Amino acid sequence: MRIAELSRQTGVPVPTIKYYLREGLLPAGELTSPNQARYDEGHVRRLRLVRVLLDIGRLPIATIRQLLDALDEPDPDVHQVLGHALPTSIAGKDSVDPDSVAAARKRVDRLAEERGWLVGEQAGARQAAAGVLAAFEQVGADVGLLLEQYADVAEVIAKHDLEFVGRAEGPEGMLYAAVVGSILGDSLLAALRRMTQEHESARKFGIRGDDC
Amino acid sequence: MRIAELSRQTGVPVPTIKYYLREGLLPAGELTSPNQARYDEGHVRRLRLVRVLLDIGRLPIATIRQLLDALDEPDPDVHQVLGHALPTSIAGKDSVDPDSVAAARKRVDRLAEERGWLVGEQAGARQAAAGVLAAFEQVGADVGLLLEQYADVAEVIAKHDLEFVGRAEGPEGMLYAAVVGSILGDSLLAALRRMTQEHESARKFGIRGDDC
Repeated sequence: MRIAELSRQTGVPVPTIKYYLREGLLPAGELTSPNQARYDEGHVRRLRLVRVLLDIGRLPIATIRQLLDALDEPDPDVHQVLGHALPTSIAGKDSVDPDSVAAARKRVDRLAEERGWLVGEQAGARQAAAGVLAAFEQVGADVGLLLEQYADVAEVIAKHDLEFVGRAEGPEGMLYAAVVGSILGDSLLAALRRMTQEHESARKFGIRGDDC
Repeated sequence: MRIAELSRQTGVPVPTIKYYLREGLLPAGELTSPNQARYDEGHVRRLRLVRVLLDIGRLPIATIRQLLDALDEPDPDVHQVLGHALPTSIAGKDSVDPDSVAAARKRVDRLAEERGWLVGEQAGARQAAAGVLAAFEQVGADVGLLLEQYADVAEVIAKHDLEFVGRAEGPEGMLYAAVVGSILGDSLLAALRRMTQEHESARKFGIRGDDC
């Protein structure tokens, strides 16, 4: 298909597609003449993935490029691709005091060790968790019990996530599912958590006025 | 304390504090002379909360103002304040086809009804969940089982969250905990989920090279 058709099928404007091509987020089409290229179903799929990563995952372009590069390796390493998808979306807070983050990091490391989690020492998620823990403490919240409860829940979620990945077809499909599930999963969980919080809050504190 | 001391205690630069004052994110200090004001511990606490909401919650200024206004009501409604904290951070995707979102919304409404969740018909979280579901479908992922599993997990999390709120002191403390827990909780859960995903992935697919 031509670029106009690619645009029609995905709803992404042609200039945006050209931008993604320039940024290396979308592989070049097959040249059919010096200034015309042909695109296929692979482009449609890749374009949808890029939109989701940008729009819902809110990942920076550079991270998406890394992730897609890892996905395009001839013999991609599922475990490593998963590693790329991850910490950037939750890292990089500068409002938290570095000393508190360092202290929180020890707590996160202890948690991982006690639970026997196989997580790289350098994994960005360790530092991300430490940043959030430190932020909780900075606003005076006692987060000890919640941390253990969330860790229990996270163990359950990860099992579901990996089963979700396992249901996809072939290595490429599994990688795709891993990336999509990782990024979209956070948002899905957050939305459902809002709903169940509202439910619990309504049960516990009652409903006033016309909230419901 | 003077504004310089408020800045020292919180690590927020004076010009930024002045900006928050102008934007109504921080209540004015008590005037001690025509161009000097005094601030107290309440300002320190509020300033830390604003930083966390901006930096980790990534909430827009207007949403933070609404939330703080609700928090400052003489007789604040916990249930309603919780409602403010919520959907904006996960809503507003424009990369998903509106028809798919409408179909997904029916699925979310059915889920909530089957589970007896007390959630307002107009709750933003319903629409947010629908948006993410539609995005999953748009990239070709079959999310049916995952949705039910996540809903189970969300019910557990919400109970923990409300207990966390209940451990805070007094109505003001509870509101504060609700806002902090809602916003920071998403990030904490996301970070822990990354760690447990890495663990599950390492168990399932093995570790290659020097990832760990």
